[in-house]
Amino acid sequence: MTETPPNQTETVVSGWAGLDPSGKVTPFIFQRRENGPEDVTIKILYCGMCHSDLHYLKNDWGITVYPVVPGHEITGEITKVGKSVSRFKVGDRVGVGCLAASCMECEFCKDSEENYCDQVQFTYNGVYFDGSTTYGGYSDLIVSHQRYVVRIPDNLPLDAAAPLLCAGITVYSPMKQNDMLRPGKKLGVVGLGGLGHVAVKFGKAFGLHVTVISTSPSKEEEAKQRLGADDFLVSKDPKQMKARTRSLDFIIDTVSAHHSLGPILNLLKVNGTLVLVGAPDKPVELPAFPLIFGKQTVKGSMIGGMRETQEMMDLCGKHNITCDIELVSTKNINDALDRLARNDVRYRFVIDIAGSGGGVPKL
Amino acid sequence: MTETPPNQTETVVSGWAGLDPSGKVTPFIFQRRENGPEDVTIKILYCGMCHSDLHYLKNDWGITVYPVVPGHEITGEITKVGKSVSRFKVGDRVGVGCLAASCMECEFCKDSEENYCDQVQFTYNGVYFDGSTTYGGYSDLIVSHQRYVVRIPDNLPLDAAAPLLCAGITVYSPMKQNDMLRPGKKLGVVGLGGLGHVAVKFGKAFGLHVTVISTSPSKEEEAKQRLGADDFLVSKDPKQMKARTRSLDFIIDTVSAHHSLGPILNLLKVNGTLVLVGAPDKPVELPAFPLIFGKQTVKGSMIGGMRETQEMMDLCGKHNITCDIELVSTKNINDALDRLARNDVRYRFVIDIAGSGGGVPKL
Repeated sequence: MTETPPNQTETVVSGWAGLDPSGKVTPFIFQRRENGPEDVTIKILYCGMCHSDLHYLKNDWGITVYPVVPGHEITGEITKVGKSVSRFKVGDRVGVGCLAASCMECEFCKDSEENYCDQVQFTYNGVYFDGSTTYGGYSDLIVSHQRYVVRIPDNLPLDAAAPLLCAGITVYSPMKQNDMLRPGKKLGVVGLGGLGHVAVKFGKAFGLHVTVISTSPSKEEEAKQRLGADDFLVSKDPKQMKARTRSLDFIIDTVSAHHSLGPILNLLKVNGTLVLVGAPDKPVELPAFPLIFGKQTVKGSMIGGMRETQEMMDLCGKHNITCDIELVSTKNINDALDRLARNDVRYRFVIDIAGSGGGVPKL
Repeated sequence: MTETPPNQTETVVSGWAGLDPSGKVTPFIFQRRENGPEDVTIKILYCGMCHSDLHYLKNDWGITVYPVVPGHEITGEITKVGKSVSRFKVGDRVGVGCLAASCMECEFCKDSEENYCDQVQFTYNGVYFDGSTTYGGYSDLIVSHQRYVVRIPDNLPLDAAAPLLCAGITVYSPMKQNDMLRPGKKLGVVGLGGLGHVAVKFGKAFGLHVTVISTSPSKEEEAKQRLGADDFLVSKDPKQMKARTRSLDFIIDTVSAHHSLGPILNLLKVNGTLVLVGAPDKPVELPAFPLIFGKQTVKGSMIGGMRETQEMMDLCGKHNITCDIELVSTKNINDALDRLARNDVRYRFVIDIAGSGGGVPKL
C-alpha cells in the first residue's frame, strides 16, 4: 500500500517533556498515533499540574521512562472524530484524565472501573496497544479513544474544570462508593491542597459538616471563608485533636507526605471510614488499637472509572464546582514545577497551553 | 434493715492473681458482688488462657491495676440465678467471655454491639457499676449479669469450647460482618495461633478455600493435615508470596507482633478486605500503593457483641467446632504462662479450674 495516511501532519505534536530526573521540562516535538475509528483528536487548551507529574519527572517512583510528557488533567476542543465515534462531534468541549487504555473485557472494564483493570495504561508514561508511548497533556494535541473522554458541562470554564479530571474524581469516587455523600454527616478532610480543597467543595455541595485537618494553622481562614469549611483542626495540636475524639463519620486523607494515621483515626466514630487517596512513598503508620477498638475501616482508592468520571463532571456542572486555580503560561512551567515542589499553590496550577487566557464557560 | 444478705459466703472466691509485672500469678482470695436480680452465679470449670492475659499480667499496655485476676474464656455451670433471670436456670452449661458490663442504652448496646459501647467494662481489670473491681476466670466462681452469659451447646465439651468466647468470636464477628463466610471464596489466615486456627476451622466449615500464611514453615503440615487448610504460604518467602499475588478475597490477620501489611496486601484481589484482629503494640506498616491501586480495605475488629457471640456458639455446635487445646492443672498456670510467652502451645491452654479432668459433651 502506498496510500498516504490521511492528515498525517496532525500527529506531529509540540509539547514539554522531562528528559532526566532534574524535575524540569523542555520543549519536545513528538508524534502521536493516527486518529483511529474509535478515537477523537483534541486540541488541548488547558492542562492541570498534578503532584504526580513532579513525581514522574523526578522518577521518584523509579518507573519513569524518559522522555516523559506529563499531564493528565486535560481539557480542550475536539478537532476530529473517527468514523465509529458516536458520542462526540467536532467542536465539543471535552476532557481527558488519567486513563489512556484498558482491556475493555475484564470484570472491572465491564463495570466501568477501567482504573482497576490490570492492563490499564495511563495518559502518560504508558504504552498504548499499538506499541506507541503515551504522552500527556503538556502538549498541544492528544488522540484519545472515545471511551476515555469526558464531556465538560457548558457552564464550567475549561481551565478551572481541568483538575477535576484527576483531583476531582480521586476524591469523588471514594466519597460516592463509601456512601459518604449524606447530608448532615460529618466529614474530615486531611490536607488542604489540590485534592483536599475539592473534597471540601463536594462535602459542602452535598450538605455535609466539613472539618479540615491540616498541619498549617495559617490555612484556617481560607478553609472557612474561601471554601466554607465548618471546622478546622491543626493536626499537630493534641489538645484540639483530642477535643474532637470520635466526632467524624468519614475522613478523606489526601496527604502524600509520610504520616501516622493514629491521631486521625482517633477523630473517627465507631464504624467510621478513612479513605487514603494520597500516596506517601514510605508506608504510613497504622496503630492497631484505634482501628480495632473502633471497628474502623481504612480504605484505598485510586482515581475513578470513566462512567463515574462523567457522573462527577455532570454533578460539578449542576453544583457549579470547579477547582481554585492559578493559570500558568507555557513559558513558566518550570517555575510552577518549582513552586509545586514547595506546595506553594492555591490550589492547582493549570497550564494555558494554547495561550488563550483564562477559560470561560460556553454561554 | 438488719437482714443478712442471702448466701453471702458465696461471694468469697479463690483465684490466681498477678500482683506485679513479673508475669506470674499467685493464689488470691477475693470477694465478688452479691448475685443480683439479673445475675447468675457460675461455678467455673474451665478457663482459656488468652495472650491478652499475659499482656495484662506484665502491664504491657500500661493499664493494669494490680491485683489482676486474668481470664475471659470461662465455662462452667450455673449454681444460682437472680429473681429476674429468665434465660437461664441452675445447672445450665454456660460461658462468659470478655464483657462484664455496658451502658445498655446507647446505639451499640441497643444493637447488641456492647463491645463498642463507650462505657464497656471487661471481665477483668475493669470496674463494675457498683464500684467493685472485675476479676476474671482464673478463679472458681463468677457472678455475671445474664446479658453477658452465653449458652454452650450440649454437644460441645466445656474445656475446648472455652476459648471460643474470645478467640472464636474475635474471628467470627469480622468474618460475618464483612460477608466473608461465602462458600468458594478464598480466605487467607495470617498467623496460626489461638485465633488463626479457629479462623481456619470457620473457613472450612463454611466451604471456603483457606490459605494459611505463617512465618513458620514447620506449621505447613499441621495447617493442612490437622486443620484442613488448602494452601500454605511462608510469609518470609518472597517467591511463594509473589506467586499468589491478587489471589485472595479476604484475609484475617491475627498476628500481634509488629509487621508490615505490604506483602500481605499484595495477596489480596482488587476490592479485597483485610481484617486486623491481632493488636501489635507498635503501629503496623501500611504501604499506600497496594491499598490504593487495589481499592483495598483494612478493617479493625474487636471481639463481638453478645447476640453475635451466642450465634457463633450455636454455629460451633452445629458444625462441631471447638478449639484445639492443652489442658493445664491449676498448679501449672505459671509454667503455661511461660510457654504462652514463647508461643509454645497448640493452640490454646485451658485451665482445669475445678480439677475435673477434660471436659465432655453433655450426652
